[in-house]
Amino acid sequence: MAAVLGQNSYGKSDIRLMKVVRDGAVHRLHDLVVDVTLEGDFGAAHLDGDNAKVLPTDTMKNTVYAKASELRLGTNEEFARELAAHFLQTSGAAHAARVSIAEHAWSRLEANGVPHDHAFQRGGAEVRRAEVRRTRAGDETVEAGIERLTVLKSARSGFSGYPRDQYTTLPETDDRIMATSISTRWRYATDTKGFDDQFTGVRRALLETFADHDSRSVQHTLYAMGAAVIERCPRVDEISITMPNSHHLLVDLAPLGLDNPNEIFVPTPAPYGLIEAKIFRT
Amino acid sequence: MAAVLGQNSYGKSDIRLMKVVRDGAVHRLHDLVVDVTLEGDFGAAHLDGDNAKVLPTDTMKNTVYAKASELRLGTNEEFARELAAHFLQTSGAAHAARVSIAEHAWSRLEANGVPHDHAFQRGGAEVRRAEVRRTRAGDETVEAGIERLTVLKSARSGFSGYPRDQYTTLPETDDRIMATSISTRWRYATDTKGFDDQFTGVRRALLETFADHDSRSVQHTLYAMGAAVIERCPRVDEISITMPNSHHLLVDLAPLGLDNPNEIFVPTPAPYGLIEAKIFRT
Amino acid sequence: MAAVLGQNSYGKSDIRLMKVVRDGAVHRLHDLVVDVTLEGDFGAAHLDGDNAKVLPTDTMKNTVYAKASELRLGTNEEFARELAAHFLQTSGAAHAARVSIAEHAWSRLEANGVPHDHAFQRGGAEVRRAEVRRTRAGDETVEAGIERLTVLKSARSGFSGYPRDQYTTLPETDDRIMATSISTRWRYATDTKGFDDQFTGVRRALLETFADHDSRSVQHTLYAMGAAVIERCPRVDEISITMPNSHHLLVDLAPLGLDNPNEIFVPTPAPYGLIEAKIFRT
Amino acid sequence: MAAVLGQNSYGKSDIRLMKVVRDGAVHRLHDLVVDVTLEGDFGAAHLDGDNAKVLPTDTMKNTVYAKASELRLGTNEEFARELAAHFLQTSGAAHAARVSIAEHAWSRLEANGVPHDHAFQRGGAEVRRAEVRRTRAGDETVEAGIERLTVLKSARSGFSGYPRDQYTTLPETDDRIMATSISTRWRYATDTKGFDDQFTGVRRALLETFADHDSRSVQHTLYAMGAAVIERCPRVDEISITMPNSHHLLVDLAPLGLDNPNEIFVPTPAPYGLIEAKIFRT
Repeated sequence: MAAVLGQNSYGKSDIRLMKVVRDGAVHRLHDLVVDVTLEGDFGAAHLDGDNAKVLPTDTMKNTVYAKASELRLGTNEEFARELAAHFLQTSGAAHAARVSIAEHAWSRLEANGVPHDHAFQRGGAEVRRAEVRRTRAGDETVEAGIERLTVLKSARSGFSGYPRDQYTTLPETDDRIMATSISTRWRYATDTKGFDDQFTGVRRALLETFADHDSRSVQHTLYAMGAAVIERCPRVDEISITMPNSHHLLVDLAPLGLDNPNEIFVPTPAPYGLIEAKIFRT
Repeated sequence: MAAVLGQNSYGKSDIRLMKVVRDGAVHRLHDLVVDVTLEGDFGAAHLDGDNAKVLPTDTMKNTVYAKASELRLGTNEEFARELAAHFLQTSGAAHAARVSIAEHAWSRLEANGVPHDHAFQRGGAEVRRAEVRRTRAGDETVEAGIERLTVLKSARSGFSGYPRDQYTTLPETDDRIMATSISTRWRYATDTKGFDDQFTGVRRALLETFADHDSRSVQHTLYAMGAAVIERCPRVDEISITMPNSHHLLVDLAPLGLDNPNEIFVPTPAPYGLIEAKIFRT
Repeated sequence: MAAVLGQNSYGKSDIRLMKVVRDGAVHRLHDLVVDVTLEGDFGAAHLDGDNAKVLPTDTMKNTVYAKASELRLGTNEEFARELAAHFLQTSGAAHAARVSIAEHAWSRLEANGVPHDHAFQRGGAEVRRAEVRRTRAGDETVEAGIERLTVLKSARSGFSGYPRDQYTTLPETDDRIMATSISTRWRYATDTKGFDDQFTGVRRALLETFADHDSRSVQHTLYAMGAAVIERCPRVDEISITMPNSHHLLVDLAPLGLDNPNEIFVPTPAPYGLIEAKIFRT
Repeated sequence: MAAVLGQNSYGKSDIRLMKVVRDGAVHRLHDLVVDVTLEGDFGAAHLDGDNAKVLPTDTMKNTVYAKASELRLGTNEEFARELAAHFLQTSGAAHAARVSIAEHAWSRLEANGVPHDHAFQRGGAEVRRAEVRRTRAGDETVEAGIERLTVLKSARSGFSGYPRDQYTTLPETDDRIMATSISTRWRYATDTKGFDDQFTGVRRALLETFADHDSRSVQHTLYAMGAAVIERCPRVDEISITMPNSHHLLVDLAPLGLDNPNEIFVPTPAPYGLIEAKIFRT
């Protein structure tokens, strides 16, 4: 028997949960998607079909609903932390528990200019993420992130000075559209508190830098965004950013007898540039 | 030969176009997706492979870019109208031309609390649509619409008093979540002007009614929304609304020893109720 | 009160159902998605919030599962017919009931070259559809269809002889890739039997014609496909076909110093030509 | 300045390429999606906006098309290898180049029972992947994989003997549907040849084991599948497998007065169990 079991994990993904919290007539929504993952000593299940140590993923799902009901939901980071601690308790075989929570935003509808008590519109594709990994030894990492935050700047972006070879046809430009869908994940220092304020600060540092940077490439702006977070958000030790270059190609109108002074573009989903980097605190 | 060609049409779909309009340093975005369709006398192409009357769909695409460049873009309804008139002119075989434009919203990023000149965040899934159909005889219908406007109310919605048969298990409720993704299309009276203001008025009538209605069913609220549009927007002659019932099921926590006082719900994408109706002006 | 309720309907969509039928050790799968729609006299629900005539869509869902259990599933057309008749019986307010069934195919895995008794691989995106609409007066239309059947031919397709205007840049070609995703729906004559064989015949007529036709345009091939169905399938009275032109653009390798003798193409999802026609029996 | 650039990479993703190869009248299709990634010394671009070492991703795209034209395409692993070597040559700053190729299958249409020369139907969602990573030092890893291979077995699958806590409600079963969408990636020993045959062997080992295994859990079957690959495919050193548990829930028909002897199931997309493991050769 040449085969050996290596790294493995299991859990429940995509547990959808809407909690309605009522402060009198004023309602708040928590629209969450929770993923639970256990790492540990599950070899008997794999090799022998022995499930004695396999906490069912159905139980994980029930637990998420039960805890969402029992707990006064604070930040998602705190909820993830409580869930991770719980699963280490109920699954003796687990060496580590990971709980990741994605939140979708809803904004209040307005009726006659006043924010409504209990009627909401769903936000865009942007997702706010919180993720906690806790080991049996009690080590804990708390991460937060943003996914699918789609932004565009129509000025102060160029790309030039790059090397050319026989397959290079791209014209240099000092005025192009830069569009991307930001995915980012950062790690908080231990004992960080006030996760909602932290999140707001990171998001603001990213967006303000994106908007105001004089960009010579996606790399250039991505790094500036990450560096701004490290500088402005002292509780963030490390941030990873992934930014596709969502190309908006200038339409060639010359064959139609027209000039195109950087006005008419085709958004093209594929292919796309893809830039990734990690920026950390020294 | 038993086969006969019936109703037919052709065109170009999903022409993606981003126009950047510059008012000095302040930029505006038009993020449009245009569909062009011609109806007419195209039997020779079908039966004989004779393309003499088939304006290529590639030319339609080029034309959309050219006209977007040449024209000062006003409302999408006006742009669609100019395109429809153009295609009737350049395709002699067309009896009618249909141009449909979907617009995706972008909002300005803020840097230090001030709306940014040229940096934007893409809005949600909501789409604003404009559609013009013009015949060779000069008849024109102008429609507008909204797609994928996802809303939810967590109070003032119930469903009871319905008939029961041997397969009915649904409990009656006077307090449930009502969530939906509104799709709607309305037709303007001829000589309507000010399409952007019209649109704002219709959207507001729909959302304010959704929020404040005491709902006994999706049908009940859908009709109230349509009726509000007819009453408050005198230029709208007819409106069609489609609303899925995006069920949020109350989680049964009793087996876990917990009560669930309308707090913890599972959003379920399928199956879903689907309600459709047309409401018109007498 | 200027608003009047027009055409309306409601029902349950996306009822997912997997039935495992056991012929001894050999299993068969029915992987169905059912939509139920009622048209009728539902004004009281819309105007007054009176649900006395509104058979809940949840009951529709239960009914589909119950009938799938009680009935020996034959063809989907027969199942749709029985469901439609049932819903007219249990919803006195309905004037017509529509039941549409989409089936996803699964093929047997092979172990050592032998088709497996109970292990399957899911087929592609292609969907087989059956739809029955039955009125209270007893009129019934039975339709079948295919969706998302993606095909491509790399020879015997050209496009030339079309009119040119100032915005035309497309080069004529007598050798291009023609690719499409066929969507089609046809109506059977009353008293048609053997729906599975009928379906097989229509699908074969469509695909053999697509493959062997000398195509001068998508219109030309679409019509030939529809005409082949009308000629070869006497129980089909009418067929509608929608075919996007899924453009595969020849890559311009000249700037890279290379020739491209119709070998290297870019599949482009957008924009796309869209051709639709109805072909019927005289 | 507290911020430091860590691990980073960039490249072009989703380069879509259809190559038509003609053996006389008989055509073959290569429907590929290529991703190119470079790792290396790109700090100047990030920190200073200096692009002197940044081979444009647009050039990468052009290169893929040029090489697809120049080369006689053999296996995708060989194509990826040639591309990776090329990019190390043309990007002096790169320390490593990664090329990943996804292939979508097309099968020949049949006309009168004979496989067609140049007409094809697209296969299902299943993707075949090849990935090569080559370092400047000349080290090379060749991996292959499968994504979205959706399979189901309707017998010989159970789940019991698991621990229970206060949140456990799942009933034990010795007869359930097991359905999953296999994602797997394996690494070949150096000097492996005949990648197409290797791929066929791995795929067969996975599917035959899935079909014939007496499954006590997804973990149990996943491990058996990986172990079968290690045992039957001597060139494979290591395999990672990810299998969601695509739950098919038995419909509770008791409230409708009906029995459900493992016949009627609801496929539920969310939430889902998710099982991952790596199996390697000792």
